[in-house]
Amino acid sequence: MTTYIPPGKRRPQSPHLPFGDRRDTPFYGKDILSVDQFDRTALEHVFGVAHQMREMVERVGTFDLLKGKILANLFYEPSTRTSSSFLAAMERLGGSVIAINEVRYSSVAKGESLPDTVRTLEAYADVIVLRHPEVGSAALAAKHARKPVINAGDGIGEHPTQALLDLFTIVEELGQVDGLTVTMLGDLKYGRTVHSLARLLAQYDVRINYVSPETLRMPEPIIGELERRGVKQRSCNALEPALEETDVLYVTRVQKERFGDPAAYESVANCYTVTPDTLRRAKDRMIIMHPLPRVSEIALEVDDDPRAAYFRQMEYGLYVRMALLAMVLGKV
Amino acid sequence: MTTYIPPGKRRPQSPHLPFGDRRDTPFYGKDILSVDQFDRTALEHVFGVAHQMREMVERVGTFDLLKGKILANLFYEPSTRTSSSFLAAMERLGGSVIAINEVRYSSVAKGESLPDTVRTLEAYADVIVLRHPEVGSAALAAKHARKPVINAGDGIGEHPTQALLDLFTIVEELGQVDGLTVTMLGDLKYGRTVHSLARLLAQYDVRINYVSPETLRMPEPIIGELERRGVKQRSCNALEPALEETDVLYVTRVQKERFGDPAAYESVANCYTVTPDTLRRAKDRMIIMHPLPRVSEIALEVDDDPRAAYFRQMEYGLYVRMALLAMVLGKV
Amino acid sequence: MTTYIPPGKRRPQSPHLPFGDRRDTPFYGKDILSVDQFDRTALEHVFGVAHQMREMVERVGTFDLLKGKILANLFYEPSTRTSSSFLAAMERLGGSVIAINEVRYSSVAKGESLPDTVRTLEAYADVIVLRHPEVGSAALAAKHARKPVINAGDGIGEHPTQALLDLFTIVEELGQVDGLTVTMLGDLKYGRTVHSLARLLAQYDVRINYVSPETLRMPEPIIGELERRGVKQRSCNALEPALEETDVLYVTRVQKERFGDPAAYESVANCYTVTPDTLRRAKDRMIIMHPLPRVSEIALEVDDDPRAAYFRQMEYGLYVRMALLAMVLGKV
Repeated sequence: MTTYIPPGKRRPQSPHLPFGDRRDTPFYGKDILSVDQFDRTALEHVFGVAHQMREMVERVGTFDLLKGKILANLFYEPSTRTSSSFLAAMERLGGSVIAINEVRYSSVAKGESLPDTVRTLEAYADVIVLRHPEVGSAALAAKHARKPVINAGDGIGEHPTQALLDLFTIVEELGQVDGLTVTMLGDLKYGRTVHSLARLLAQYDVRINYVSPETLRMPEPIIGELERRGVKQRSCNALEPALEETDVLYVTRVQKERFGDPAAYESVANCYTVTPDTLRRAKDRMIIMHPLPRVSEIALEVDDDPRAAYFRQMEYGLYVRMALLAMVLGKV
Repeated sequence: MTTYIPPGKRRPQSPHLPFGDRRDTPFYGKDILSVDQFDRTALEHVFGVAHQMREMVERVGTFDLLKGKILANLFYEPSTRTSSSFLAAMERLGGSVIAINEVRYSSVAKGESLPDTVRTLEAYADVIVLRHPEVGSAALAAKHARKPVINAGDGIGEHPTQALLDLFTIVEELGQVDGLTVTMLGDLKYGRTVHSLARLLAQYDVRINYVSPETLRMPEPIIGELERRGVKQRSCNALEPALEETDVLYVTRVQKERFGDPAAYESVANCYTVTPDTLRRAKDRMIIMHPLPRVSEIALEVDDDPRAAYFRQMEYGLYVRMALLAMVLGKV
Repeated sequence: MTTYIPPGKRRPQSPHLPFGDRRDTPFYGKDILSVDQFDRTALEHVFGVAHQMREMVERVGTFDLLKGKILANLFYEPSTRTSSSFLAAMERLGGSVIAINEVRYSSVAKGESLPDTVRTLEAYADVIVLRHPEVGSAALAAKHARKPVINAGDGIGEHPTQALLDLFTIVEELGQVDGLTVTMLGDLKYGRTVHSLARLLAQYDVRINYVSPETLRMPEPIIGELERRGVKQRSCNALEPALEETDVLYVTRVQKERFGDPAAYESVANCYTVTPDTLRRAKDRMIIMHPLPRVSEIALEVDDDPRAAYFRQMEYGLYVRMALLAMVLGKV
């Protein structure tokens, strides 16, 4: 029952998945816990399916691939953006959703354990999406669940579907990843998204520029890992030298609170803000990405430029999550 | 992209609306922001569609007119009644709903702008219903959205679907609006619903009585507007003189807090309460309406009288919202 | 309109239930308020339908028996487990759900009465599930509603669907109820679930053991009622003498707060904890049940034993709720 079967081998004996499931597909019954599960072949598989999802949504809006399936959308901390995205993904596939935004049990809100909650929910649902503030919570849930668990963020741990949608955005917008120069801008120390994206990019032939304040640099372990894997990397304090060659400008927010001294923040904030002037010096065929929400690090005037890809990025997220749901449920 | 195209002309290029959409219909792709968008022709169109919705719901419960469409039900302040009504409307049309009752983004709940939130949600959804405490918020959202926005109340601004359902209730219950005498009772100063209803009624040949405490009178600008438009209006402090001729008695709540002195409230409260005695002196064929929730301004004993239309009014709201959703999505 | 028609006779004239409804079925249009509504014939009918639901879910996941129906899931106090179960039940039957986890009306959150809220919601929905902290609230709601009301717990009153799922678990796991020995363990004084289950069991030929601390005994009125109905009952302070003959071990939580003195709690806690050692002395063919959430009264090591039925119990709850929804809506 609770015996841990590694994701790669686990095949749910769930009676809920009986007809037309392709149990021989690589992700059937698997958990999605980490970007480390995705080698280049797997990435290409996911992106191929996500692209098909895009075409289907553009053509028919929704379709009944997951009709009869139920997703438990289990969010221990609020994230309207991510929970809405999974919810829409499931609904566009004809499935249903149990949305649980705060886990509470009337009088006995004494704190049921995560494994017990997950085992309860899988009595009702076919797949579980979990957002939880603690690192490792998704793996813990997956260990006890018979149904597939998708990690939608476990604290400062992983948020693999965000990384996958970031990479898929690049693929869809620019046609390929090999040969591109990706510049990451802003807070590269605390930004979970840039860490995961960098590690995914290491599977391609890319050049990465890191532009950040001295105190918010990309962590050494990640730089070291990418270096060993042969990625050309460069760090600088200003966007200027990197901008001209940039194909993908990935912007993150520099939070004032990261600076002890407000003056220190003010002195650098401008350097990490994207404006129409930034665009004038950028390539014609490049894209600006952002995990959103954006505060002031991208000027509103930039939104109208076709290179502003950050709202489209949300839509690519929908397609990637549709693909993952269909894949773990054995429908593609 | 964000270029503002006036609602009257806007046609979404959304790929989500491909088959069977009637793009030549008057409300296709439009926002519903204000009652001012509805002249008498438009009102009759909406009510015709709403009546069809009523017949379909009575006959089959739900049907798949909006199958494949997703509504983002975006409520920045709670309103169970209105959000449930839109949710049921979408579900009875076979569509799906992303219900967002509080807009929150985990660690970064630093306040994303409304336009950014709307642009994110339209990556997932086909139409957005917005409730927001600030006047003008619906227009702001509509300006940035490519998908249709329906105003479900923007502070003391507008709440057009409430006004439409009020008028539709009169049409369905009494057969027509021309020739009727409508008496509005209670707090006419702060009641958003009576202001909008009065302005819609001005398009018909009606007589309106205003019965309110001296301090809670219908605002002069509205009385002036209706006078210029030829509506026969009369103000009085008591229901008595108006009751006998009343076809529609629209009751609103007189809030104690509006009175500095509690005694002042107690002295008038009785005059604005509808009781079985009120009904004895009213026409046989008349209706009592109320936007709900009701507190004590209508006695519970009145509920059983067939003239008590306020719970049926909720049901008419469902039909009007079904009609509007189908219309802006190009399905009627 | 609000005239009270006893549940046994009430037949909604709702226009929402027109085609294919079997109005001649015993539960069509009825409220589910109390376990007292279920005699042995009714129980067998419910369990027969629930078993069919189980087979259908195992074979096809969901099906469209309640397509076109809407459930209003009205929870005045949070209960993720119960609300998720009803939500999944409705979705697996192809119906839709209006989930209301907190009843709030924007500015006018002044407290609408429960009857008014229910009469509003039935304008949108076909059946209402109600969880409310006050005893008698479900009956009050049912009195005013034209649509069926299902009690999902009214304070220390009833929670009939929990009792039904408990009994259904026994039926499905052990094949029959007659001839079994059921041992209830833990807090038998405050546990609503054991009271209702005991009263349902009285309809069968069973033997019941009560194992609890002196201060948390099964209430005398219930023991008296069962005695009059011929049930063999026995009370003891320890599990030991009862364990060997037990077919069903129903465990409930002993809350520390029930003991004035923490030491008094510690002195008994161990006696009411189920461990692998307990299992060693139990029958091979028996089951351990628990209404969940579990805290420490069942050791985690027990979860892997096939006799641990408490997670499967959740799944049986799904089938029972599916059965009840389909029955009150006239679809079986």
